[in-house]
Amino acid sequence: MLVVLKQGATQAEIDAVCDRIRELGFEPHPMPGSMRVAIGITGNQGPLDPALFARYPQVAEAVPVSKAWKLVSREVKSEDTVIELAGEQGRAARVGGGSFAVLAGPCAVESREQLMAAAEAVSRAGAHVLRGGAFKPRTSPYSFQGLKGGGLELLAEARRATGLPVVTEIVDPRDLEQVERHADMLQVGARNMQNFALLEAVGSSSKPVLLKRGMSARVDDLLMAAEYICKNGNYRVALCERGIRTFETITRNTLDLGSVPTIQRLTHLPVIIDPSHGTGDHASVPALARAAVALGADGVMIEVHPNPAEALSDGPQSLTPASFEKLMPSLRAIAEVVGLSI
Amino acid sequence: MLVVLKQGATQAEIDAVCDRIRELGFEPHPMPGSMRVAIGITGNQGPLDPALFARYPQVAEAVPVSKAWKLVSREVKSEDTVIELAGEQGRAARVGGGSFAVLAGPCAVESREQLMAAAEAVSRAGAHVLRGGAFKPRTSPYSFQGLKGGGLELLAEARRATGLPVVTEIVDPRDLEQVERHADMLQVGARNMQNFALLEAVGSSSKPVLLKRGMSARVDDLLMAAEYICKNGNYRVALCERGIRTFETITRNTLDLGSVPTIQRLTHLPVIIDPSHGTGDHASVPALARAAVALGADGVMIEVHPNPAEALSDGPQSLTPASFEKLMPSLRAIAEVVGLSI
Amino acid sequence: MLVVLKQGATQAEIDAVCDRIRELGFEPHPMPGSMRVAIGITGNQGPLDPALFARYPQVAEAVPVSKAWKLVSREVKSEDTVIELAGEQGRAARVGGGSFAVLAGPCAVESREQLMAAAEAVSRAGAHVLRGGAFKPRTSPYSFQGLKGGGLELLAEARRATGLPVVTEIVDPRDLEQVERHADMLQVGARNMQNFALLEAVGSSSKPVLLKRGMSARVDDLLMAAEYICKNGNYRVALCERGIRTFETITRNTLDLGSVPTIQRLTHLPVIIDPSHGTGDHASVPALARAAVALGADGVMIEVHPNPAEALSDGPQSLTPASFEKLMPSLRAIAEVVGLSI
Amino acid sequence: MLVVLKQGATQAEIDAVCDRIRELGFEPHPMPGSMRVAIGITGNQGPLDPALFARYPQVAEAVPVSKAWKLVSREVKSEDTVIELAGEQGRAARVGGGSFAVLAGPCAVESREQLMAAAEAVSRAGAHVLRGGAFKPRTSPYSFQGLKGGGLELLAEARRATGLPVVTEIVDPRDLEQVERHADMLQVGARNMQNFALLEAVGSSSKPVLLKRGMSARVDDLLMAAEYICKNGNYRVALCERGIRTFETITRNTLDLGSVPTIQRLTHLPVIIDPSHGTGDHASVPALARAAVALGADGVMIEVHPNPAEALSDGPQSLTPASFEKLMPSLRAIAEVVGLSI
Repeated sequence: MLVVLKQGATQAEIDAVCDRIRELGFEPHPMPGSMRVAIGITGNQGPLDPALFARYPQVAEAVPVSKAWKLVSREVKSEDTVIELAGEQGRAARVGGGSFAVLAGPCAVESREQLMAAAEAVSRAGAHVLRGGAFKPRTSPYSFQGLKGGGLELLAEARRATGLPVVTEIVDPRDLEQVERHADMLQVGARNMQNFALLEAVGSSSKPVLLKRGMSARVDDLLMAAEYICKNGNYRVALCERGIRTFETITRNTLDLGSVPTIQRLTHLPVIIDPSHGTGDHASVPALARAAVALGADGVMIEVHPNPAEALSDGPQSLTPASFEKLMPSLRAIAEVVGLSI
Repeated sequence: MLVVLKQGATQAEIDAVCDRIRELGFEPHPMPGSMRVAIGITGNQGPLDPALFARYPQVAEAVPVSKAWKLVSREVKSEDTVIELAGEQGRAARVGGGSFAVLAGPCAVESREQLMAAAEAVSRAGAHVLRGGAFKPRTSPYSFQGLKGGGLELLAEARRATGLPVVTEIVDPRDLEQVERHADMLQVGARNMQNFALLEAVGSSSKPVLLKRGMSARVDDLLMAAEYICKNGNYRVALCERGIRTFETITRNTLDLGSVPTIQRLTHLPVIIDPSHGTGDHASVPALARAAVALGADGVMIEVHPNPAEALSDGPQSLTPASFEKLMPSLRAIAEVVGLSI
Repeated sequence: MLVVLKQGATQAEIDAVCDRIRELGFEPHPMPGSMRVAIGITGNQGPLDPALFARYPQVAEAVPVSKAWKLVSREVKSEDTVIELAGEQGRAARVGGGSFAVLAGPCAVESREQLMAAAEAVSRAGAHVLRGGAFKPRTSPYSFQGLKGGGLELLAEARRATGLPVVTEIVDPRDLEQVERHADMLQVGARNMQNFALLEAVGSSSKPVLLKRGMSARVDDLLMAAEYICKNGNYRVALCERGIRTFETITRNTLDLGSVPTIQRLTHLPVIIDPSHGTGDHASVPALARAAVALGADGVMIEVHPNPAEALSDGPQSLTPASFEKLMPSLRAIAEVVGLSI
Repeated sequence: MLVVLKQGATQAEIDAVCDRIRELGFEPHPMPGSMRVAIGITGNQGPLDPALFARYPQVAEAVPVSKAWKLVSREVKSEDTVIELAGEQGRAARVGGGSFAVLAGPCAVESREQLMAAAEAVSRAGAHVLRGGAFKPRTSPYSFQGLKGGGLELLAEARRATGLPVVTEIVDPRDLEQVERHADMLQVGARNMQNFALLEAVGSSSKPVLLKRGMSARVDDLLMAAEYICKNGNYRVALCERGIRTFETITRNTLDLGSVPTIQRLTHLPVIIDPSHGTGDHASVPALARAAVALGADGVMIEVHPNPAEALSDGPQSLTPASFEKLMPSLRAIAEVVGLSI
């Protein structure tokens, strides 16, 4: 259910309607737009009678939402969600609403030397956000599991050195405070897309979330996972298409670019493409990154390692600093063609 | 790496070899067999020189393990793992090693009345373990999420009433103590199969684990997830095939019975089949349950609800008590043909 | 659209209704049942007015068919289709209607010696139909493509020697006459399931058809492919589940046993299971064949080769004569439990 | 096996080596390059001894080919295959080798009026090739099956009117002569990708072939299917990625753009993208077409219908002439960025 207020409704009027919704036993979710405010309602079973809001003159209309997910839907909020990430030294990133963001850095934080080299390279080439994993969810318990707390501290150091805001993965709700302290954006990985305890935890965070699509998640499941986060009060969610699992094994995953325009029509949340995990092959990453811009996505996330041959994880899909630097101008040129700023 | 001891090695001799392994910087995992003990070694990079154990006369041989997963492998332990679950009133269940176990009960614990009706029905019909969800991971945040703590208490009550041991899902590492207190077996759901924080938590539990295959998990991934649990010290793990996600939508999932004989050749862990989630349709469950026995699986998990039409979750795939009762004799008759005890 | 005649309608009355249907511009498909005759109508767009048949007193009712496929539907013909195959020396096979058929033989006909050894072994062990490929559709143009015409003649010789009816694959509509001359049943392979020119050709044959499910075919597509055959006048079609292509690669294909009960509810056509292609591994075939019986399928197709290690195609999935012979008694014992005759 | 000749080898010398290969019992496949000629050898089992060519001084080297497919491999021919299609009135198309081709037109030829409107629209907007189906392979036997011979004649008429070369589908080897007479390029559809009788037929044609990837075909299977065509002597094959079948149903298929750079590294054949079938949704087609150019593909195939709402097949995925016209300039601008000519 969605309650749309008339243009010019005051905060007090918005609050009054929210109180009314709570009084009815439901949860209000105000969605400010540039023209007018709408309030999503969750917790109801079946449609609500618009007459319930008859005594609130600022209510323009009360309309049902047709999808199973509500708060992430364009029906509830037609304008693009824009996520602003502030770094230091005046560096900042903007994801969504016509801005194309480049998130880059190593798969895993391995050492100060490795991280600094990667961070400086991607910063110099024009990336907007530094990525790097401190907590690494690995298929095998015998693989490198990340530097954990030490990795977070190195990310903070790289942030100070380059000014770039940082996105890093969280894998356990118990780590929330620690990760929040160092990261500008919290990444939920593909394997945890339906770890609902984790979704609820990041939903209560003040930091925005980068939610990666699960390997077997339909678009509906991805939007439902985002809905868990929004329902807990955190509306700053970016989705990330990183490839689904199919019968094709020549690439690491099957990057589902074909769904992206549909996702963008269904939701106001920005969509980031990860061609590194999507293909698993550094030689394919530049072409797919260019395709992502041409497609009109809201960003790309690219793995860059100073020495891919010695990477502790995902070396084969990592660009060198030189190839990343070479890629950036073509992304900018294509962005211009399709009307994105980069 | 696997160190195989000679027949008749004493506990002191086993301990001495384990100490030696720790001294080398690795982790020992003793695997008692009916004939002799083997000790799995994890934490090593590359093969170990058998000469490292030259001064231990009880070491018969030191052999490399060819698979990426070690502790769950038949190479490390050739005999079937058998999991014994004790209930009350002399009721008990045995999973693996030629015993076919029937786990049955409602998808979710909804109320005392509903749970007791289901528990008594499946007990009467001859089920060995009562299943029921107190914490429900649901795709939508607006779906019924389970009775949580209250559900666990109802399960404990049903356990006392029927004597049946209980299996129930755990979705958050922070709930471990609470769930352990009431359950005889901890279920890790398909969506959490690669929630490594949760796998590590149940790996430190004294209760056995039922690990469901993820919707997009290859058999290798499933065995790796089980390896996480064993590596943390809990070797009592049963695997559960509950259907994978494919392009076919006429069934809820695609039940991958074809992999089961292969899984049984690769691992000593028992394999349970879940035809309820596998098909999503109560009308198909009996035929698939019979197929599971004929296949030589180690058990089935079947959803039974006193009134499927009013179930808060998964009603369409739940059997009525009457149809469950009618199914059991055919399972027993087929078990006899294939040499399983039920 | 389906026109159901009253019990006891004479052939003349049936013919009159068929003429009326043709007069209206549509095609009639009489479907005799044990109780009464129904006439499927194809070629209409949208529902027909039952009043069109008002002057035919033998018409009991005219009902719309809800599925996109018509002639294969249980709505149009509720009774099981039974396909009788006559061999020589009194040997015969019955597929469907409570009879479980065992089709066995080598993947490809390689030589007289090989085929005769296989044919005699499967005959002796109690198979009902001899399978063997003369025209082999192979992924690579450099693989053995079959003995073609010479293979058909060897099959005819094996048929005379053992009395077993023969099923063999047809890959080109231009081969129809030649294959029909030697085979009792025409197999359409998975790769040709939507080769509509071939479907139309076998639809005009007097020989029954074994239609294998395509690797990416949904059940709906399989039924639509069968509908092509029936629409051309050949109603004797058996479906064959042989595994679909999914992300799981530990087996050759993913045998979709979970769909079989649904298929049997939707269509009156018999369903055969092929565990050889379904798993690709001879060690898994016996367990899956037993599962197929327990499931209530209408038959299995099993590859048997006198010397699997030297087979020109699909050796790893072929049983030896000895293991096939050992399998048969367990199939019979399970058939008895589930009420099938074998 | 590949025999590479020295630069400057004469035709007589090439012929002599080919004769030698035939004398050894194999098939020679000369592959002219801009620098030197190589001769692929098929029909051999295992590696050939280079000494077999010792007496031919023009043989520079004899090297094994590592892939299962040979003639389509970059190992055998490193330079891009370029397919030239000549229309009338000076119109021509070039597929491959840095030229990006736009193939456009209706899914099915429905009437003279419909086809002419579409043909003129796509011609005016700058398409290079007119597409249109006369023989339509349809999942249901009750769907419109195409105008067949009449459709071919209309295509020939549209070709004369616009000058555009024509690509149209062939579904039956028996139609080869008839289709060849009217088409400049023969399309083999996804459902027939492994209809080997059809592949062999078009392999013997003098017309180039557009081979669509099957819904469950791995890249290896696609290249093997192309190998069937080349092996029969027709080396002018373009591949078409049109989406594979996965669990995701929000799009009609899952367009596998991520594999395209890999395919281009493996084979010298051009790769065309079909965003119409790939997404099934006209609203997504422009974005995916732009992505295809940015990716560096060799062309796109786009469905355009003068009145999509009334199309007899695939209306929902067809662009209007206006939206197609609007799309073309952005394709040209992106082509310029990535160094393709359009």
